[in-house]
Amino acid sequence: MPEHPTERAAVTLWLTGLSGAGKSTLAAALAAQLSARAVPHLCLDGDVMRTGLCRDLGFSAADRQENIRRVAEVAALLNRAGLTVICSLISPLQADRDRARAIIGAEKFLEVYLCTPLAACEQRDPKGLYRRARRQEIHEFTGISAPYEPPQTPALSIDCSQEPVERAVTRLLALWSTHC
Amino acid sequence: MPEHPTERAAVTLWLTGLSGAGKSTLAAALAAQLSARAVPHLCLDGDVMRTGLCRDLGFSAADRQENIRRVAEVAALLNRAGLTVICSLISPLQADRDRARAIIGAEKFLEVYLCTPLAACEQRDPKGLYRRARRQEIHEFTGISAPYEPPQTPALSIDCSQEPVERAVTRLLALWSTHC
Repeated sequence: MPEHPTERAAVTLWLTGLSGAGKSTLAAALAAQLSARAVPHLCLDGDVMRTGLCRDLGFSAADRQENIRRVAEVAALLNRAGLTVICSLISPLQADRDRARAIIGAEKFLEVYLCTPLAACEQRDPKGLYRRARRQEIHEFTGISAPYEPPQTPALSIDCSQEPVERAVTRLLALWSTHC
Repeated sequence: MPEHPTERAAVTLWLTGLSGAGKSTLAAALAAQLSARAVPHLCLDGDVMRTGLCRDLGFSAADRQENIRRVAEVAALLNRAGLTVICSLISPLQADRDRARAIIGAEKFLEVYLCTPLAACEQRDPKGLYRRARRQEIHEFTGISAPYEPPQTPALSIDCSQEPVERAVTRLLALWSTHC
């Protein structure tokens, strides 16, 4: 319960990976499991945040950095209030993720790498963005024309092209339960 | 419970008023009552937000505007997730508060005016800021060298120099209960 002292420490599960890697799908499936366990939680989705708190930001390196900083600050605030947070953001650069880790606190920041290969993400292309990026209608698109730096030591790696959602969520819950 | 459909609609109580008017004190007292009723809630305090999400912002008109926008965006996010939010920010300008109302949604935005008179705030001066503002060590200080525009039609007005905290909280709870 927010504002209540809780027995459990609230953590942030930070889902990073390419567009189309399955971040939002996994976040929703994990959230449903936390709901079933009556764990207070909140999802912070990169696309959704860009329609509100981060609506003034674009996709330059500086703006991506500020985008990630703001999401991390909100996650930290929610963790302190006892809510578990699931962040789903491409967050392509290690330095930006490290800043998020510093803001949230290393012991509360669980970096989850969605390592679904580019080819699978591009084939899936749920928002049609890869097609547009290949046509150069979108510039600085992660994986095509902008870098993605894989986490060096993620708490968990999940390839959504190989692993069923249910199994991935079971592993996420196991990770979560050892940190709360 | 966040991410759960709730029977109650979550609202934002927006406490505006001069520095030292009693915003944080009232917010804490109200939060305690919401805790006692097991109502999921979160406090967003202006001073605290400036140490995190809004740490890059100063006190110029543009920065105050962005500060209020960000807090309002977070409040809207939390309301959507079913959490009641108590914001305590000086938020001196009506236009900025109106923008917050638009972001949060007019039906969820309860504007509470802490109308404690300047003289009482200055006498209380819990942070020593008025003394410093009178010495011109702080510029653009609300009530001294920067304007405060009282709300035209607040949902509630509270003068903390006249009304005991307990009575004010009772009135805040009554207001809240008619909007949730």
